[in-house]
Amino acid sequence: MHLFRQPQKAHELATSWQASRQTIGFVPTMGCLHEGHMSLVKAAREHCDRVVVSIFVNPLQFGKNEDFGSYPRPFARDVEMCKAVGVDMIFHPDRAEFYPRNFRTRIESGSIGKLYCGKSRPGFFDGILTVVNILFNIIKPSQAYFGEKDFQQLHLIKQLVRDFRIPTKVIGMPIVREASGLAMSSRNEYLKDDQRAAALCLSRALKLAQTAYREGDTNGLSLMRKVEEFLRTESAFSFDYAQIVDETTLDLITGEISRPARLLLAGYMGSAPRIRLIDNDTVNR
Amino acid sequence: MHLFRQPQKAHELATSWQASRQTIGFVPTMGCLHEGHMSLVKAAREHCDRVVVSIFVNPLQFGKNEDFGSYPRPFARDVEMCKAVGVDMIFHPDRAEFYPRNFRTRIESGSIGKLYCGKSRPGFFDGILTVVNILFNIIKPSQAYFGEKDFQQLHLIKQLVRDFRIPTKVIGMPIVREASGLAMSSRNEYLKDDQRAAALCLSRALKLAQTAYREGDTNGLSLMRKVEEFLRTESAFSFDYAQIVDETTLDLITGEISRPARLLLAGYMGSAPRIRLIDNDTVNR
Repeated sequence: MHLFRQPQKAHELATSWQASRQTIGFVPTMGCLHEGHMSLVKAAREHCDRVVVSIFVNPLQFGKNEDFGSYPRPFARDVEMCKAVGVDMIFHPDRAEFYPRNFRTRIESGSIGKLYCGKSRPGFFDGILTVVNILFNIIKPSQAYFGEKDFQQLHLIKQLVRDFRIPTKVIGMPIVREASGLAMSSRNEYLKDDQRAAALCLSRALKLAQTAYREGDTNGLSLMRKVEEFLRTESAFSFDYAQIVDETTLDLITGEISRPARLLLAGYMGSAPRIRLIDNDTVNR
Repeated sequence: MHLFRQPQKAHELATSWQASRQTIGFVPTMGCLHEGHMSLVKAAREHCDRVVVSIFVNPLQFGKNEDFGSYPRPFARDVEMCKAVGVDMIFHPDRAEFYPRNFRTRIESGSIGKLYCGKSRPGFFDGILTVVNILFNIIKPSQAYFGEKDFQQLHLIKQLVRDFRIPTKVIGMPIVREASGLAMSSRNEYLKDDQRAAALCLSRALKLAQTAYREGDTNGLSLMRKVEEFLRTESAFSFDYAQIVDETTLDLITGEISRPARLLLAGYMGSAPRIRLIDNDTVNR
């Protein structure tokens, strides 16, 4: 397995693979790998000749009061996990080289990037699209894998690739959950036992919406209210949003749900540190 | 010579050239080709195995009250000019296909893109970087050629390529001038004879600054004032800006000029239509 910090080195190897017509599967991550990430890596390993994982805690996607500094970075463990499943290259760039002092260009995700998580985290998706676009230019992947847990992120990356005609196929993979129902997340590492139990309110809220829909409540606004009411009963959890959206366009559905719809949830556990948790699932499938 | 309107067709041919290790020289234009453009095409023809010219009047880089609708589009003449110098492919996309209705992603050029021409034309450089980035994804050029006439544009495209690690070399080529000194521009087509004579104030202002510098006025602010005063004596010309900048960083130089500096000029001729003209040259070389 190759481990590169320099973008130029990673680019040269990727280019040589491409020149010999080998397909490249790419999984961009911020490290602290868990089973969710590994499901992406395994899919890439199955579909592609070469597999590249990037590990880079991207400062552009963190707000001033967010957890950039404390974000978990168990790098040696991540490397072992990648080795174990046959990753060909880990790209682990140095922040100062990746974003030199005079770095100025950004990608703007547009209107959808200002909704939902983008409303609570201004600039979040612009930071993600910027790093992903740069990583794609370096790695030139045939296919890139992202988890559906970050559903809005997946949507905006598909939009980026479509709008900018990037020659990469974006593949979304299902959320991986613990047996309890808790969606896998690097930020779960922050949770104390009682918080981990309280965090189950998210997956329970998803089930609640699915059951209510099945039992006849097919109105978006009504379902969102029920979910919000339920989440607000969990005192350890601080509610951010519960939104039912069109799976394809990410437009909010406030009326009758007549298309494939997804319930997106976000909120925080604790206060110092405040741990952001998100989750989502289909409503009517 | 190939002529494609569909991005996919252009991409496939460019990819096949790349796969057989042929270098691609690319000249993005808005058409209405003149000797300035042709100097870029000829350089590409000399340096590269394949030459691609794009002809696309990019709506994203025009403001609401600007000349998108009336911008000259002598397409048949452009095609003949390209054929005559051995261009391999003209890419002439359809606007609705290039920017479909749900197109949302943009590139933001950052602080330098808000100065000089960016101050008078908000969003101008973001529109340029967005289209250039997409064109680069389609054509995958080894080298891309831009005129120094649009000096700030050239700077921002170099910034884009550096920041986003686009595997293309950006080459700036000198301004081509008519015998009178008027810098070649597609917008010169709009000028009536008296306006064309008055427009010489721009190249004369550049000479004035060079002479003043040589004769001992080496202060940025003082030189800018002299140039502005001179340009304001031309009643047919409506002054926008005269700025002396560091050639490498594009930072304004208000004090002693101690690095390679360039004088950037912009203004308008006439009122209906208002014709934007720009020009620039080195001050101290």
